[in-house]
Amino acid sequence: MQGGGFLLGENVKVLQQLFSPSVLHALDLIGIFVFAISGALLAVRKNFDVFGMAVLAEVTGLGGGLFRDLVIGAVPPAAFTDLGYFVTPLLATALVFFLHPHVERIQAAVNVFDAAGLGLFCVVGTTKAYDYGLGLTASACLGLATAVGGGVLRDVLANEVPSLLRWDRDLYAVPAMAGAAMVALCLRYDALNAMTSSIAAVTAFVLRLLAMRYHWRAPRAWHRRSTVMEE
Amino acid sequence: MQGGGFLLGENVKVLQQLFSPSVLHALDLIGIFVFAISGALLAVRKNFDVFGMAVLAEVTGLGGGLFRDLVIGAVPPAAFTDLGYFVTPLLATALVFFLHPHVERIQAAVNVFDAAGLGLFCVVGTTKAYDYGLGLTASACLGLATAVGGGVLRDVLANEVPSLLRWDRDLYAVPAMAGAAMVALCLRYDALNAMTSSIAAVTAFVLRLLAMRYHWRAPRAWHRRSTVMEE
Amino acid sequence: MQGGGFLLGENVKVLQQLFSPSVLHALDLIGIFVFAISGALLAVRKNFDVFGMAVLAEVTGLGGGLFRDLVIGAVPPAAFTDLGYFVTPLLATALVFFLHPHVERIQAAVNVFDAAGLGLFCVVGTTKAYDYGLGLTASACLGLATAVGGGVLRDVLANEVPSLLRWDRDLYAVPAMAGAAMVALCLRYDALNAMTSSIAAVTAFVLRLLAMRYHWRAPRAWHRRSTVMEE
Repeated sequence: MQGGGFLLGENVKVLQQLFSPSVLHALDLIGIFVFAISGALLAVRKNFDVFGMAVLAEVTGLGGGLFRDLVIGAVPPAAFTDLGYFVTPLLATALVFFLHPHVERIQAAVNVFDAAGLGLFCVVGTTKAYDYGLGLTASACLGLATAVGGGVLRDVLANEVPSLLRWDRDLYAVPAMAGAAMVALCLRYDALNAMTSSIAAVTAFVLRLLAMRYHWRAPRAWHRRSTVMEE
Repeated sequence: MQGGGFLLGENVKVLQQLFSPSVLHALDLIGIFVFAISGALLAVRKNFDVFGMAVLAEVTGLGGGLFRDLVIGAVPPAAFTDLGYFVTPLLATALVFFLHPHVERIQAAVNVFDAAGLGLFCVVGTTKAYDYGLGLTASACLGLATAVGGGVLRDVLANEVPSLLRWDRDLYAVPAMAGAAMVALCLRYDALNAMTSSIAAVTAFVLRLLAMRYHWRAPRAWHRRSTVMEE
Repeated sequence: MQGGGFLLGENVKVLQQLFSPSVLHALDLIGIFVFAISGALLAVRKNFDVFGMAVLAEVTGLGGGLFRDLVIGAVPPAAFTDLGYFVTPLLATALVFFLHPHVERIQAAVNVFDAAGLGLFCVVGTTKAYDYGLGLTASACLGLATAVGGGVLRDVLANEVPSLLRWDRDLYAVPAMAGAAMVALCLRYDALNAMTSSIAAVTAFVLRLLAMRYHWRAPRAWHRRSTVMEE
């Protein structure tokens, strides 16, 4: 999710006053970095070369925010106006390139950071969309898309079924939905501030951690097992 | 295809005067609903969970119109400004979730509605693109993209070869092309009204029904069988 | 890459004065044509029908420029405002449809033209992005995306791993990066003219030819072979 120091509009300004732009920007970059790590690691598993790693890292780190900015008409998107957003995935690529066995070994830590990115991006994505005049539901949807869009693009480019859609993966969208919905509710009742947006981000973060810890999964369609598998 | 009550511009206004916005909006929602059904059904076949079903339903129902709106610069796209457009795919998801064996059994009926959505979307998509200042050919192309774009996105996300591209599927793009071309011709000769646009939509609809009934297929490249299969 | 006669802004105007719009437009169309050939040939290999061929040809020829225009806010994109851009991929489709065994036989020639398109598109893409106000790094990135984006979309639609990402393919992105970086450097030092932009395009072109001739490849991640293959 891009946009820390570059966001316009009242609510983001509120966020900026309470968090300070540099803190928000640093959080942004951390989120992009951990998402980019997941992209670069998938590239290694798919046996791509170093440029494929960089492309997947950029797409994973910046894709969600890029989609959001195109939808709300914020062009050129923040991904293309802030050099830091562009360089961060390259650092992630370099790290994975030289150290990927170690990065895989600390996959648990990467997952924790990824959950933090998820929580942060759904909050800032929802807020930015609302600032650009979208309704509450649409803003929450775009917040969700900001948080999960990069991972979907990553999997599509790597020619995999997006892990977001698979029933055998721990819940990923639901924590982001919860965070985005909490922000939308706060916006609805004019209660968005540093405290409430932090609570929303932390809620999404903790829900994701719990989902990984206890392997929470979503149900598949009713009677799924009793029907034929493939058309 | 989105946009009934939210479309700007003269020609769409003509459509609205003749059809009444509420009728157009209802037709829009029906089209989105049946497209979303096809997305949710594919998600069931691919063994996705309920959130994967909702994502595929939203993408299939709204993707074509979203692409069109981004291209013509109509941001935020109608998909994000009308709550009904967002909720309709969720209803389709719920229906498929609980009743999918029955929905599969009435696949023939779903196909008929899908053909109706195809006819409707190619007409409204072409008209909206023209209203935003595109040329006649470009408008017809965008009308086609509006009608088939959601299905292509659905297949890409599900990691399948888009059925639009496969030679062993009944004609799908050609009926939409015919409808879009008829609308473009009417626009060219200033003859677009409720009658002619209905004829265009019905033509696309009937052509698609005939293609399914008689398994019309498009030719593959010349000498296809005599050449090596894979590089 | 689209945009010859339709580009706005100072630098492109400089290019136009030095090259004349009609020369630039012709180069554009040649680039689109050869890219479209590669799309139509992939469609034949994937056993798609003639409409699938046309869709892949259009996407491959126009996709990179379409992405660039959406990002810089140049809507409607040049791909939808110039009939020639739309018709050119159809001509490529017709050629491949009737003559594809011969086209495959002259694959070497197609590769040379494709390399020429790569060189041209990275230069014009970078220049157009800069004209729309992007920074130098972002402009070079968009120039690269313009040059390689169509091929990535082609592979995604055909449900293949993008050849851009695969380590067992000859370098493709690096020549385009070199060309885009040279243009960005020229822009930085106010030295962009017909001579320097030609040198940049030719450099990318020659690098790509050398990469194919000597099978230059990019490294994979450190220790790649010593780790487990798939998750």
